[in-house]
Amino acid sequence: MGMTITEKNMARHAGLDVVKPGQIIECHLDAVLMNDITFPPARREFLKIGKPVFDRHKIYLVPDHFTPNKDIQSATQAKVMRDFVREYGITNYFEVGRMGIEHVILPEKGLIGPGEMMIGADSHTCTYGAVNAFSTGVGSTDAGVAMAEGKTWFKVPETIKVELVGKPNKWVTGKDIILELIGRIGVDGARYMALEFAGEGVQHMTMADRLTICNMAIEAGGKCGVFPYDEITEAYIKGRVHRPVEPINPDPDAVYAQTVTIDLSKLQPVVAFPHLPSNTHYIGDIDKDIKIDQVIIGSCTNGRYEDLVAAAEIFKGRKVAPFVRCIVIPGSQDVYDQAMKEGLLDIFIQADCAVSTPTCGPCLGGYMGIMAEGERTVSTTNRNFRGRMGHVDSEVYLASPYVAAASAVLGRIAGPEEV
Amino acid sequence: MGMTITEKNMARHAGLDVVKPGQIIECHLDAVLMNDITFPPARREFLKIGKPVFDRHKIYLVPDHFTPNKDIQSATQAKVMRDFVREYGITNYFEVGRMGIEHVILPEKGLIGPGEMMIGADSHTCTYGAVNAFSTGVGSTDAGVAMAEGKTWFKVPETIKVELVGKPNKWVTGKDIILELIGRIGVDGARYMALEFAGEGVQHMTMADRLTICNMAIEAGGKCGVFPYDEITEAYIKGRVHRPVEPINPDPDAVYAQTVTIDLSKLQPVVAFPHLPSNTHYIGDIDKDIKIDQVIIGSCTNGRYEDLVAAAEIFKGRKVAPFVRCIVIPGSQDVYDQAMKEGLLDIFIQADCAVSTPTCGPCLGGYMGIMAEGERTVSTTNRNFRGRMGHVDSEVYLASPYVAAASAVLGRIAGPEEV
Repeated sequence: MGMTITEKNMARHAGLDVVKPGQIIECHLDAVLMNDITFPPARREFLKIGKPVFDRHKIYLVPDHFTPNKDIQSATQAKVMRDFVREYGITNYFEVGRMGIEHVILPEKGLIGPGEMMIGADSHTCTYGAVNAFSTGVGSTDAGVAMAEGKTWFKVPETIKVELVGKPNKWVTGKDIILELIGRIGVDGARYMALEFAGEGVQHMTMADRLTICNMAIEAGGKCGVFPYDEITEAYIKGRVHRPVEPINPDPDAVYAQTVTIDLSKLQPVVAFPHLPSNTHYIGDIDKDIKIDQVIIGSCTNGRYEDLVAAAEIFKGRKVAPFVRCIVIPGSQDVYDQAMKEGLLDIFIQADCAVSTPTCGPCLGGYMGIMAEGERTVSTTNRNFRGRMGHVDSEVYLASPYVAAASAVLGRIAGPEEV
Repeated sequence: MGMTITEKNMARHAGLDVVKPGQIIECHLDAVLMNDITFPPARREFLKIGKPVFDRHKIYLVPDHFTPNKDIQSATQAKVMRDFVREYGITNYFEVGRMGIEHVILPEKGLIGPGEMMIGADSHTCTYGAVNAFSTGVGSTDAGVAMAEGKTWFKVPETIKVELVGKPNKWVTGKDIILELIGRIGVDGARYMALEFAGEGVQHMTMADRLTICNMAIEAGGKCGVFPYDEITEAYIKGRVHRPVEPINPDPDAVYAQTVTIDLSKLQPVVAFPHLPSNTHYIGDIDKDIKIDQVIIGSCTNGRYEDLVAAAEIFKGRKVAPFVRCIVIPGSQDVYDQAMKEGLLDIFIQADCAVSTPTCGPCLGGYMGIMAEGERTVSTTNRNFRGRMGHVDSEVYLASPYVAAASAVLGRIAGPEEV
């Protein structure tokens, strides 16, 4: 009996020929990731073990959540990380101004590749399934132990096959596809399961689409999201991953717990209304008078170059509506640089957007766009739980960069074809 | 007996032929300024009066201190301002993404001009003396009353004449000159007095230099700082101020309380050590081993295009030192745009600086670069009081963009000639 991508990856890292869903295994890790919020508690657990780090080149430390420092507390957290980096000679540390948001920079810099396995003390660590890796978010305790041991345990998850068929129209992006999926199966529809994307529709998914899709696997409760390895993966890792890679595709007779089919050709932009990512509505069905106060374009979900290209296409020659603030946050210094050189930042500035330095900032209610009572934001981020981006009585609508930009221009929730 | 610039301005706005220091007068105001911090309390006082606003075009409202919103509280403050703007039809409101830092955008957009008078509920409102205006910081209560009345009272200040002689060398900027002055006379050396700049050295002061110098008049306790009107003022306001202006120069027989002479030709870059702007040291006298953690380049003091040009000159082809974070904050969207188009932002990004959207942010300990215990920042901002930018046991060193950039590159306090 064959295995899914995730089962094959787990078997490989456990040194086993075969694994089955439900089996408890111990896996060697190719990397362990932490950020400025999750590192300090991970460090405390690590120090209790009393061992050195398992590999100073395989611990990735990224201060991105509340940096540049929001306040004294966040400055203190960042300092704890920085001091550790110096003491232990950690090489993959990405200081403010050098890189950006963890889940944007790791794939961008080839720090995770096909067939590899990593954990991160951040729930959106599942992003890297886009490059055919197994990656998942863990708590700081697990990350702290993994810093010392270089391995961790897993229960092998069942896999849901998400069959993508048809070709999407221009305005349908990875964000719409993952929101559609979450809308269908619910925020716990893939609880502790792998979401494996398959089907002919996969070929229409750019790497940016795939990263967005896998990034939000956790919003369906997924242990991970993963794409097969194909020409798009190969082209993306070329020049980025400078190690031999062993991609993983599913066995033809792999067993899936469930199959969900999404016909991309019939999809339209999707918006997740408050207060759950599963509360989805098609753009065509949405009232034309849902006024907004703010738009956020960025984050580990949609802060890549392609996302800014999409937003700029809408903003070109247009302006953000009066009294609406639109904050554009490139996901990394490279994204920023490329967007600047290609004229995208100029389009944003001319459109009256504020362009921030890379940061997670508003997504988790950190800073750089927090809401007051009664305010409403259309955001390209990943969660719209109550109070996530500010006051408990504020609202977040999740959408693609196209929808976010169109909404900014019209001052209400709107699709790209309405501007 | 003649009058100084400030006396003549006050006489004009009081409708009097002559005023004398110590006299209590009531002046009509050309504008009243408030920001996101000072507006809400000003509004409360305004509402008590029960009158309409004196002129909806002459109330300038700028959300810049904690915007894009740092947290729920700051979002609420900004919302109070925004709601007021809508209700009262305020025309000079500058939403996030449209403009930037109040004291950068008002002169930039010609909202204050020669011979005019304004007050602002922000201590650095004294900046506009650079364009030959009288402007000074007031409390929110005074601003709130002025919103209704369009006038306020003053005690006419005595004037200190600051005679600038000689020509400064390339590395000596307006920042160094004002720090030198504060170092000499102390943080209360000009308490409730006007600082009037004069002498042949004035011709070497660009408008950016003058704005920086007047901006920090308050750091010597000054009621205002003011420059005479000359070709540089004329060139600057051309195309910006679209009203007839009546510049003011001092009477030849004006009476000054005191004269301070600064020989620009003998000056070198000045750094104000913790924890007072008057704790000044010449760059040549400073130890070569004062390690730093952070550099801030921006603010109403040094966030103008010329400041970024100076910083970029140092950063070009160089990198920020390891573990040092350097945050560059253009003072306005126009500054951002020009710096982007002229390649400065590219230099900053290549040098590993974080480039922020315009905000006051770190200067007042708001966000975007707050310090942990024991950290040290070289900053182009205006105050280095204990705890101003973070932990009570952190340190701020005030300096010019040249010195700040050089320090970022070397990871220690350093002058531009050391890189």
